[in-house]
Order: sequence, then C-alpha cells, then structure tokens
Amino acid sequence: MPTILGQNQYGKAENRVVKITRDGATHHIKDLNVSVSLSGDMDEVHYSGSNANVLPTDTTKNTVYAFAKEHGIESAEQFGIHLARHFVTSQEPIETARIRIEEYAWERIEASDANSKFIGADEVKHSFVRQGQETRVTQITYDGERWEVISGLKDLVVMNSTNSEFWGYVKDKYTTLPEAYDRILATQVSGRWRFNWTDDEQKMPNWEKSYEQVKKHMLQAFAETYSLSLQQTLYQMGSRIINNRSEIDEVRFSLPNKHHFLVDLEPFGLKNENEVYFAADRPYGLIEATILRDGCEAHIPVDLTNL
Amino acid sequence: MPTILGQNQYGKAENRVVKITRDGATHHIKDLNVSVSLSGDMDEVHYSGSNANVLPTDTTKNTVYAFAKEHGIESAEQFGIHLARHFVTSQEPIETARIRIEEYAWERIEASDANSKFIGADEVKHSFVRQGQETRVTQITYDGERWEVISGLKDLVVMNSTNSEFWGYVKDKYTTLPEAYDRILATQVSGRWRFNWTDDEQKMPNWEKSYEQVKKHMLQAFAETYSLSLQQTLYQMGSRIINNRSEIDEVRFSLPNKHHFLVDLEPFGLKNENEVYFAADRPYGLIEATILRDGCEAHIPVDLTNL
Amino acid sequence: MPTILGQNQYGKAENRVVKITRDGATHHIKDLNVSVSLSGDMDEVHYSGSNANVLPTDTTKNTVYAFAKEHGIESAEQFGIHLARHFVTSQEPIETARIRIEEYAWERIEASDANSKFIGADEVKHSFVRQGQETRVTQITYDGERWEVISGLKDLVVMNSTNSEFWGYVKDKYTTLPEAYDRILATQVSGRWRFNWTDDEQKMPNWEKSYEQVKKHMLQAFAETYSLSLQQTLYQMGSRIINNRSEIDEVRFSLPNKHHFLVDLEPFGLKNENEVYFAADRPYGLIEATILRDGCEAHIPVDLTNL
Amino acid sequence: MPTILGQNQYGKAENRVVKITRDGATHHIKDLNVSVSLSGDMDEVHYSGSNANVLPTDTTKNTVYAFAKEHGIESAEQFGIHLARHFVTSQEPIETARIRIEEYAWERIEASDANSKFIGADEVKHSFVRQGQETRVTQITYDGERWEVISGLKDLVVMNSTNSEFWGYVKDKYTTLPEAYDRILATQVSGRWRFNWTDDEQKMPNWEKSYEQVKKHMLQAFAETYSLSLQQTLYQMGSRIINNRSEIDEVRFSLPNKHHFLVDLEPFGLKNENEVYFAADRPYGLIEATILRDGCEAHIPVDLTNL
Repeated sequence: MPTILGQNQYGKAENRVVKITRDGATHHIKDLNVSVSLSGDMDEVHYSGSNANVLPTDTTKNTVYAFAKEHGIESAEQFGIHLARHFVTSQEPIETARIRIEEYAWERIEASDANSKFIGADEVKHSFVRQGQETRVTQITYDGERWEVISGLKDLVVMNSTNSEFWGYVKDKYTTLPEAYDRILATQVSGRWRFNWTDDEQKMPNWEKSYEQVKKHMLQAFAETYSLSLQQTLYQMGSRIINNRSEIDEVRFSLPNKHHFLVDLEPFGLKNENEVYFAADRPYGLIEATILRDGCEAHIPVDLTNL
Repeated sequence: MPTILGQNQYGKAENRVVKITRDGATHHIKDLNVSVSLSGDMDEVHYSGSNANVLPTDTTKNTVYAFAKEHGIESAEQFGIHLARHFVTSQEPIETARIRIEEYAWERIEASDANSKFIGADEVKHSFVRQGQETRVTQITYDGERWEVISGLKDLVVMNSTNSEFWGYVKDKYTTLPEAYDRILATQVSGRWRFNWTDDEQKMPNWEKSYEQVKKHMLQAFAETYSLSLQQTLYQMGSRIINNRSEIDEVRFSLPNKHHFLVDLEPFGLKNENEVYFAADRPYGLIEATILRDGCEAHIPVDLTNL
Repeated sequence: MPTILGQNQYGKAENRVVKITRDGATHHIKDLNVSVSLSGDMDEVHYSGSNANVLPTDTTKNTVYAFAKEHGIESAEQFGIHLARHFVTSQEPIETARIRIEEYAWERIEASDANSKFIGADEVKHSFVRQGQETRVTQITYDGERWEVISGLKDLVVMNSTNSEFWGYVKDKYTTLPEAYDRILATQVSGRWRFNWTDDEQKMPNWEKSYEQVKKHMLQAFAETYSLSLQQTLYQMGSRIINNRSEIDEVRFSLPNKHHFLVDLEPFGLKNENEVYFAADRPYGLIEATILRDGCEAHIPVDLTNL
Repeated sequence: MPTILGQNQYGKAENRVVKITRDGATHHIKDLNVSVSLSGDMDEVHYSGSNANVLPTDTTKNTVYAFAKEHGIESAEQFGIHLARHFVTSQEPIETARIRIEEYAWERIEASDANSKFIGADEVKHSFVRQGQETRVTQITYDGERWEVISGLKDLVVMNSTNSEFWGYVKDKYTTLPEAYDRILATQVSGRWRFNWTDDEQKMPNWEKSYEQVKKHMLQAFAETYSLSLQQTLYQMGSRIINNRSEIDEVRFSLPNKHHFLVDLEPFGLKNENEVYFAADRPYGLIEATILRDGCEAHIPVDLTNL
C-alpha cells in the first residue's frame, strides 16, 4: 500500500447541553456547546472499516449529557476535565482526548417594581436573558498523564475612539497610506491563554475567577494603552494577563484591525473633526502574536482563524 | 407592452456610520447601519433606463455621512427622520422615503484600580466594549405628510427555566407529543412597535427613553407570566408594552420556540429531574402575532422573517 | 381589556426532510426545508393560554414527514399543496395554512473511467453532490377555497463584465459619483413569481418545468440586456418571464447592486483598463420592483428582505 | 520584563479582487479573496510600537491589486507565489510570507435560442453565473528558500443514499445506538492537499488541471467506496488522490458526518423503507485524518476547523 495514515481524530462535535441547577426557587444555568475529539489505536477503522476499536460518536454525545447529571457543570474547564479523563481511562484504544467547549453567558431578568400587578418581584428567580457580549471557550487535552488547558474567548468587540496613532512605517512603491496621528482603534478579540496546571498533583486553578480576571485585565490593557500600533496594544494585553495571573504562562491573540475610516466631508463643505467614520468590513488588517512568560515554551496553535 | 411596473423602490443599503461626540475628554459613540429606500416617479428608469429622475444610491450614502455631521445622531429615530424628510422635500420625483436603521450598543470599559502602573483610571473615557445583547432597529417612513415610525429589536434571547406548561391541545392521528407540566420556555425575540406620532405638529416621543422602557416591560412580562403557551406569553409581552407606554399603539412579535428537550438519562441509570436539556436548533415552533391598542388599526407588516 | 389581538399565525418552521426514491438501483433525491404556518380561531390561546384549538407544532412536523411517505415529493409546490389542504380541511379551527419550502438541488457524481479498479461505473447510481448555485423557494397559501402559489429563488449570483452604463442621473449637493460608461453589473438575485393557478378546477402547472424555464429566461434576460441602470435590467428580467410563461402573472425582484469598483492603479504607474476590480461588501445599492402582466393585481409582499 | 514575544504575523486579510481578462469579445473572470500574512524581524513594533520594520497592511492590499494587473491571475496558486516572493525578497525585515486565497468559480450564462428577439446568442460572452458548489482554497508559504503549497476546498456537500453501514463498534454503559446496515452517508468536505513542489528548480505543477483532477478523484472515491465507517471512506478519498496525482504527497480531510436519521413513521401506521429522513444540524460526528504518501512527512496543520 503506497499510502499511510497520519494523525487522526474523531468524535461528536457541538453537543448543546443546558444544565439547570435549582437552589430552592432560585435557578442557575450553564449553557455549553461541547465537542469531543478522540485519538489512539484507530488504524484499522481507516484501512478496513473495522469498528472494533471505535466508541461511537453517538456514545460520546450520550456521555456529555450523562456527565452533566453525574458531575454537574461547575465550570466549562472542570466539565471538560471530567470528560477527557473518562474517555482516556475507560477505553483502552483511546490514548488522547480533546474536549472543546463554548460557553454562553446569561444574566437574570430584573423583576418589575414592587407595585407590580403581576407576580411579585421576589419570585422571579428563574428568568434569564443571554448576555451576548463574547463567547467563552476552552480546550482540555489529556493523554493519560498530563493535562493541557487552553481557555479563551472570541467575538469581543472593543474600540478606543482616540489615543491611537500609526506612522513611521516602511514605504515602498505600493504604499499610499497617509500617516495617522489620531485614529480609532477597534478590534474583535479572539484570545487564548494556557494554564500551567498540567498535573493532577497540582492545585487546580479557580477557573471561573480566572476567566473573569483575565477578561478584566485584557480590557483594561486595551483601554489604557496609548497605541502606536495594534501590535503594541496586543503585546500589552498579553503582558498584563501574564503579569497579573500566575496560573497562566502563554497568551495568543488574533486581532482583526476593524478599520474605521474618517469620511471625507469636504465635497459637501463640511469639516470632519474626527467625528464621522465609515466602519469597513473587508479587507481588514489581521495581527496575531503569542506572548509568553519568560522561560516558557509556546504550545497554543498559531492558527486561531482558518483564513 | 404586455407587462407593467408595480411597486418599486431603490436606495443604498447598509451604510455603516460611527459617530464620535467629544464632550471634553469624555467621548460618546453612536454605531448605526443605515439603509435608504426611495420611491416615486421612477417608471422611466425601469422602462428605458433613463436616470433623469434618479438620485444615485451613492448620493444617498453620502447624505447619511454628511447628516451625521450636520445634524448629529441624537437617536436612530431622530436621525432617520432627518434623512427621510430631506429626500422627500428636496427631490421632486421622490414621493416616499423609508429609512431603516440597526443600532449596536456599546458600554464603557471600566478603568483599572487606582494603583494602576498605567494611565490613571479617571482618564479612560474613550474606551468601549460592544454589548452584543440585542440589535435595536427602527424604520421611518415619510410621504411628505405623515410619519410612520416602527421601532424594535431582534436577537434578544430569553429563557424561563420553569413556570411553563403545554397541555390540553388538539390530538389528531399525527400527534405524538406528550403533555408537559414543567418545561423550559426560551425564545429569541424579534419585536416591532409602532408609535402613534405621525405628524410634525404632535410632540415627538423621547425615543431613547421609550426604547429602554419598552425593553424593560417586555422582559418583565416574559419573566413574570406563568405560561400555558408561548402565544399567551407573547400576548402578555405586547399588552404590557401598550398598557405602559402611551406612545405605542401596536406591537408585533415573531417568537421562535427554542426547544430545550429533557434528555432521557434512564438508559444510563440516571434520573433527569428537569436538570439536563438538549438545546435544539431546527425545527422550531414559530409563534407570530400582533397586539393592538383597542380601536387602532394594524400597520406593521405581518412578515418579520423571510422564512 | 385595552388591548386586542391582531393577525396571528403559528407552526413548526424549518423541518428538514430528505426523501430518497428508489427506482431499482437508481436513486432519486428531494431535499427540502419545510415551514408550516397556520391561522384561524386562535384568540383563546393568546388570551387565556387554552390550547383547545391548537394542533401542536410538533404534530405539524410529524405531518411533514408522514406526508413525504404518503404522498411522495413530486415537487416542492405539489408537496406544499398536500400539506396546506390537509391542515385546512382536517382541523376545524384552522382557516388558513401557509407552507414555505426551500429546496436544495443535487446532481449525480460521475463515475470513474471504465478501467476503474473499483466498483464499476454503471453501478454508481446513489451518489450525489449538492449543486449549491441557488436556493429554490416556494410559498403555498390556502384558505379552503383559493390557492396562492408564489415560487422563486434566492442567492443566485450573476455578473456582466461589460454592457452596463450609469449616467444622466440627478446631481445634488451631496453627489460625487462620476458617470460610468463601462462598468461591471453584478447582483445576487432574490426573485419571486406568482402563478395564476388558484383553483382546484384549473389545470395545475408543471411546477418542475416551470421553475427550470423561468430560471433560464431570467438568466438570459440578465445576460442579453444592454443595461443603462439595474432597474432596466430588473424590468427586462421580469418581463421576459411573463412574456414567456403564461402560468405566471407577477414577478418581484430584490436585487442588491454588488459593486465592483475599478481599482486606481495610477499611483503604482499602472493603467487599469477595466481589468482589476475591488468587490465591495457594504454598502450596496438595493433595487426592488414588481412586474405585472397587464391587467393583473399585485399580491407578492413588497418586502423580500428584512433589512 | 517578565514576558517575551513568541510567534507573530500580520497582514491584510480578505482582499477581494476580481480580474477580467478580455480575449476580444470573450471575457474571462478570476474571483479571489486574498489574505496576506508576513513575519520576520518584528519584535520592536510589539515592544515599543516602532513601525520602522512594518510594511503597512494597506500596502500589502495595494500590492494584491497591482499584481493582478502586473502578473495577471493564471491560477490562485501562481498568483500567491508571485505575492509571497515579492514580500520576502523586497523587504529585508520580512522572512516569511504566507498567502491564503479563496477562489469562487463562475460559469457562462447560456445564450437564448436562435430566434431570440434580443441580442444574438453568439454575442453573450461576458455574462456569468456563480457556480456555488464549493470554495477552492490555497495557501502558499515562502521563506526565501523553500515553497510550501497546500491547496484544497471547503463546503462541498456529498451524499451516498446507500452502500453505507455502521456496526461492530465498542459498546460501553453510555452506548444506545443501534447498529445500521443501510444508512445515508453524507458529509461537507473540507480537504487540503500538499504539493511536493518546494523549489524554483523543480517543474511547477499545472495548478488548474491538478485541482480539477483531485476533485474528480475525490468525488469518485466517495461515490465508489462501499463504506463500513466514514473513516474508511475518508482514507479511500485520500489514497485515491495520492495514487493518481504524483504531484501530491499529503492529504488531510475534516469530514462532518451530516446525520440523516430515518424517521419513525410507525406511530402513523406507515413503514419507512429507507425513504424519509430527518437531516440533522447539531451535534454531528467529526472525522479528521491525514493520508500520506509512504515515506513522506506530515506538514498540513491538524486543525482545519476552529471548533
């Protein structure tokens, strides 16, 4: 046979699980999209079609729902750890499990005023509205010995309406861009950060608190950096995370430069004093980089997009 | 000629305009997607291709940007009124203008703690993060005499994790659904509401406050209705708006029933006590209705979707 | 009660049904997305939540799948007619049924050459690849007496690389567009056409042949019209359909003008002789119009988009 | 500074370029979406914001359009090679260029019959309709010495309506899936293949013919494989390409198992003899693997999706 099999993996993608936890009349919600990917001794199913080593993807789906009951969903990361451990330890042919999870955040709907003609305000403890700001993500990989947890977010749109410049760049025969000394800087953040927790013997991070703090530091670094380039802002965002969160050793960002072009209003006898912008779609700059704690190695995949 | 021209309209769609207003160091942002549609004496451009009556769509785009400077953007509704009035009154062949606007909401990024090594907290007044919860919409139509303003929102996802039942329905030979006495009720709200402001002589509503109040009442009605059907919840949402907001005479909702199916865990020896749900995509129930102030006529188009 | 109920409808949307018909070893495929919408005596479910008149949307879903077996799927239109008739005639409270269907076209995968080492070419009669060019749509409405069938398509992208001009238009103070004497004309066609078949006594059109012929005439009219405006091209497309297809009385198009801007290459010492274009996303012109057989009334809704 | 910079890259993404080539009255079209990504000596722009080594992304955009004129677009691969070579050889700080291109295929609109009242059939040589079946992609990487060309496609949807089984798999406590001896096998192909052309001294492949042949062999392998698992079909698709195309050493596929579930019609007294299916959206199986020419190393990234 002149061809051979290389890296392969399989599983059930995008299992949408919603878990309601009832604390008396007060309900709590976890809303996840869970993708399972398994690999190991799987040559035969590719070569001959024998499924003797194959746990069906349908079973991996069932396991997601069963585990939501058996283990609960404390955090997306903890839930993924339960799943990955299960597949690797319970199925001999499976050597590695990778669990990817998207999480959608909800907040409570505020009750109406006390003099409501309807149900009393204090009874509204089971009603939610989806926040919609960003999608939280995590990826847990386990090979039976070591853990790799990479968490992150996508689709978080941010803008500085000033404190951004762009000048002093290389000019070749195809360069027409004028230098800018006060521009809008906007991006749709896709970020991933890797935890240095790799071993069951280590103390596990507080995944929920970590996420909240990373998001806060990242937003503040974006807001507080006087920017001479989106690369500089990106580096500050990553550095701020690593400097403030000892549980994280590596950060990678993919930041589209969402261009806001100042509209030329002079043909209409108007002066545009950094007021009116055209928000462009395509093309866009795309700035991507990894920031590492000094002395650490990079493990987050370079491609966060499939462009 | 055996064929004739019927209703027609044209314009520039999806003009993305971002307006920054500077109040000293504090910036304010309006982020709109504006679509212009004009109609009037346009037979000839269809029959012979003569553009003698045609204001180019490129000009309507320019007007959007120029007006953002000339009039500012107090609210999406007010901005649309400026535009519609302009096209109808300045161009003889144009009899009717319809302006549709989507608005994206932003909130400020909170500054970091006082002991920040970076720029001081009180200086962060130009940094924003997109809220992402829902998209606000409005449609302004003007024929030179009367105004019609229909505002609304889309993609607002809400859920009640209890207080919803569904039983007592018709059963025919194709019915297999078991009755439900405690189910999740979730929907992605698409709503539109029509103002009774139609005339320049009337006092104009406070568009920003109206939107905020309508959203609040709608969410509260969703949360506080003990639901025997999504239709009942829908009607309560519409009624609550009309009963609380005198500026509005008509509401229409298109509410997909985002099914959350209780997962059968019995094959795994587990009992699912309204805890673990599968969030389904398609198919979905689709419930649509208009609610009117008694004595008023319906004007909002029936089709809010293009399914 | 100060609020009343207006138009309302409900049903199950986006039922994805695939029907395989086996003619010996040769298989045929129909791939539909069916949305059911019912209306009638439904006040009580809105006012009190009583479902006594409500056939569950789950039942309407079951009916779609059962009818695929019971009646087969000769065409999307014929399938919709079976469904609409069933709901109106079998359920007393239901007065009107509207069935919307999307259809996805497939073509056969061609077998490999005769000297294939694999399964013989003549045995490959069950393998398909999705065409992906456009989505065919239809909407069937029935009130127990009269039928309305509106068919169409969406997402058909077409381009003329010459034979298009745009000049002689109105110029106001916001006009900056230069006139064009040779431009690209491109659009993504969304079209709907209404059949004059309304009654069971009339001979039913050949729905499959009609679709194929309408698409052909529409494409040819687009290609063969020397265009002075997109409106003129649109009118020719509609006229060509009505002049060639006696079963159709009304056509409506929503045509985005997908701008292709000639790139200015002069800064690089190059001359762009209508060769290199930037394909823009937003904003875009949007041209919409109805074309009628003389003497007929318009029934197709004006809004084919939800911008 | 406790943090350091890791891998980084930047450029302009999604430059939409349409090139019209005029061969007398007959026009030809190339429709590309080009993304440029550059890396090299870029530490300073991240650390201090100095742009002294940065060729602006706007310039990379300009270069795409200028090169469409200067070099033409013979194929996406050849166009990418021109671009990558230019950036690496003309800018000292740039060490590596990666060009990603999507290509959209168009076909000619057939002219109307000879007796057309309109423009003659033989004159319609500038009118096109987009095929829409799949998106062709390529990625060219150049470090000044060696080339890596990985081409592929995405969104090609295929189905076998029989000749697929799934049984003999592992059963654990979470397994409920019944074995299947005649099922639909459908997938949306995302595939990438790597050429063994790496050096300017080697004869360059015929990129256009290669793509056409790879697609043909891949489709035929899908159609002609009697499948016991989607993994087996995937391996056959990859093997068939490598066995038939000597210019290719490595193939990777990401194949979602687009489940088509047989609908249970028994509650309605009907028997479903592999006729009526529900086409599901989520979750879906996801099967991914690399196939290599014996003796070759894998270079295609494992992640073709960002799930």
